[in-house]
Amino acid sequence: MRAAMMHGPGDVRVENVPDAKINEPTDALIRVTRASVCGSDLWPYRGFAEFSETGIPMGHEAIGVVEAVGTSVQNINVGDFVAMPFAYSDGTCAHCQAGIHTSCIHGGFFGIGVVGGAQAEAIRIPQSDGTLVPLPGGLDSAVMPSLLTLTDVMATGHHAAVTARVSPGKIAAVVGDGAVGLCGVIAAKRLGAEQIILLGRQPDRLELGKSFGATDIVTERGEEAVERVRQLTGGYGVHSVLECVGTDLSMQTALDIARPGGAIGRVGVPHDVTIPAASPTFFKNLTISGGPAPARAYIGELLPDVLEGRVEPGRVFDLVTNLDGVPDGYRAMNERAAIKAIIEF
Amino acid sequence: MRAAMMHGPGDVRVENVPDAKINEPTDALIRVTRASVCGSDLWPYRGFAEFSETGIPMGHEAIGVVEAVGTSVQNINVGDFVAMPFAYSDGTCAHCQAGIHTSCIHGGFFGIGVVGGAQAEAIRIPQSDGTLVPLPGGLDSAVMPSLLTLTDVMATGHHAAVTARVSPGKIAAVVGDGAVGLCGVIAAKRLGAEQIILLGRQPDRLELGKSFGATDIVTERGEEAVERVRQLTGGYGVHSVLECVGTDLSMQTALDIARPGGAIGRVGVPHDVTIPAASPTFFKNLTISGGPAPARAYIGELLPDVLEGRVEPGRVFDLVTNLDGVPDGYRAMNERAAIKAIIEF
Repeated sequence: MRAAMMHGPGDVRVENVPDAKINEPTDALIRVTRASVCGSDLWPYRGFAEFSETGIPMGHEAIGVVEAVGTSVQNINVGDFVAMPFAYSDGTCAHCQAGIHTSCIHGGFFGIGVVGGAQAEAIRIPQSDGTLVPLPGGLDSAVMPSLLTLTDVMATGHHAAVTARVSPGKIAAVVGDGAVGLCGVIAAKRLGAEQIILLGRQPDRLELGKSFGATDIVTERGEEAVERVRQLTGGYGVHSVLECVGTDLSMQTALDIARPGGAIGRVGVPHDVTIPAASPTFFKNLTISGGPAPARAYIGELLPDVLEGRVEPGRVFDLVTNLDGVPDGYRAMNERAAIKAIIEF
Repeated sequence: MRAAMMHGPGDVRVENVPDAKINEPTDALIRVTRASVCGSDLWPYRGFAEFSETGIPMGHEAIGVVEAVGTSVQNINVGDFVAMPFAYSDGTCAHCQAGIHTSCIHGGFFGIGVVGGAQAEAIRIPQSDGTLVPLPGGLDSAVMPSLLTLTDVMATGHHAAVTARVSPGKIAAVVGDGAVGLCGVIAAKRLGAEQIILLGRQPDRLELGKSFGATDIVTERGEEAVERVRQLTGGYGVHSVLECVGTDLSMQTALDIARPGGAIGRVGVPHDVTIPAASPTFFKNLTISGGPAPARAYIGELLPDVLEGRVEPGRVFDLVTNLDGVPDGYRAMNERAAIKAIIEF
């Protein structure tokens, strides 16, 4: 089969690789119908990874159709249309039961080498009973991009909002206007935030953010951004910060714009980030939370809003390509020429 | 009047100082009936402070009787028996309304030089309408130590438990067997924790912790403590960690014994603490919260349990002294010969 492999920084190739197949009785095999390129795929693309000789199978966001199931699979059937969260999980361990599927004791992540990637014609799904979420059949193709976002980016924006404790009437800030940040705006609005301040610099993304519910835009960075957010909040700062970048600058901004007692939900994988232990974190009674989103825990809650069109996170995809176009998708996203690429099969 | 002043590391003296008096129309003046020495008073005692020529007025935990009030005070009357939380606050600003009285925009802390200390015959209370909590009169002297703990140490243990999200059926760990940690055990039990693991090394304190509700004791430190907590929790770690020390070792232990999705409520003022941004915090989806306890927000909730004897945090006082004995109180606490000293007037 054909799959996207990364061989080094900036080097993504679509190659013939051994067919994905059932290895364990708990596996399922899905034929991918749509996949996407994630902002986190750009970290290795920019050199933050170790590369093996065979390359890294890329991709961890997909929807597709079940082609085969292992002998012990009970809830998933051949022919099911399913969503594949970016982490696999058994659904039964203490961590899954607590809703932290990304820490499943039998779990792991797609597209980092242990299992295959989703930017491929097919993919093996470990722990398929726990991992896969069956979706309704016969859906209009217009809803597919939004369904696909539930496997990572929309679930991640939602996780940022949940861990930042967004609730009705609160003031939220979203740091970052990438696809996750934009989904964070959707999530903050959906959870009832009264004011949503989006911090970013790309005009087209900020426009999309406004259409998703951002009430204020801050294009400044660093201390100037902090000052601007203070002005927008009567000097108090925000209750909830969705930190959707993962750099040290974004984190320090997040900490500085939070009001005392506020919460930061961080979902950008941290790279060289420092969290000061005393000021402002301790003395402002800040709550710092977040991590890899347990997408599996959220899909059930988010799905009706997607199916009924109340949220349209699929609008973050502004580049449609096919498997052969995946390297171009990485390039466009890396150059910020595209927000996020969707791959149609 | 006489008051305890700290002039340098290890140098606490009881001296004649100018009488406390009403300075602002919002002030009250209280005659202290009981005060205490706080674990945080030991930080400057051990050299973590800058000392002026006149010394630092010490103490921030007191109950007493109102002797005078400023012209604009409305809720507090001369003769009232009151509790004085360790921070003063107006009770009306956005942060007070949100329950973060320690960040009051008109607030501040007792005993750090701006206002006087509570280890004194009398003390001026800024923002007295917002700060002071009237207590019932005619109480038995046996309940006074527990009432006194509401001004800081019991409120702080409660804050650790609240920010560590202790709730019925959860497994909590308390790092530190000082007075705050012991009050943290009381708070964790009061909030319904099913298992309470107390980490400490002082046999008498651990015994007291058991009588407060600790179900397991861990005397190991560092990696061995982490391993022991894992054994006690089926390998999963705890849901809630009350970090009641403030050193780097205690913080790393707290992070390592928390299970994925768990929360750390830290109330030990951090000294040279590092909070790693990625592992284990981010990848385990840990929540790090806490800070200076908004004691003013909690006294109303905790008071009935103290008055009706359901909790007895006053048992953390194992050294009773008078104002002249304050230097000995510091010495005993610094040498761990006493858990906490109460000063009777």
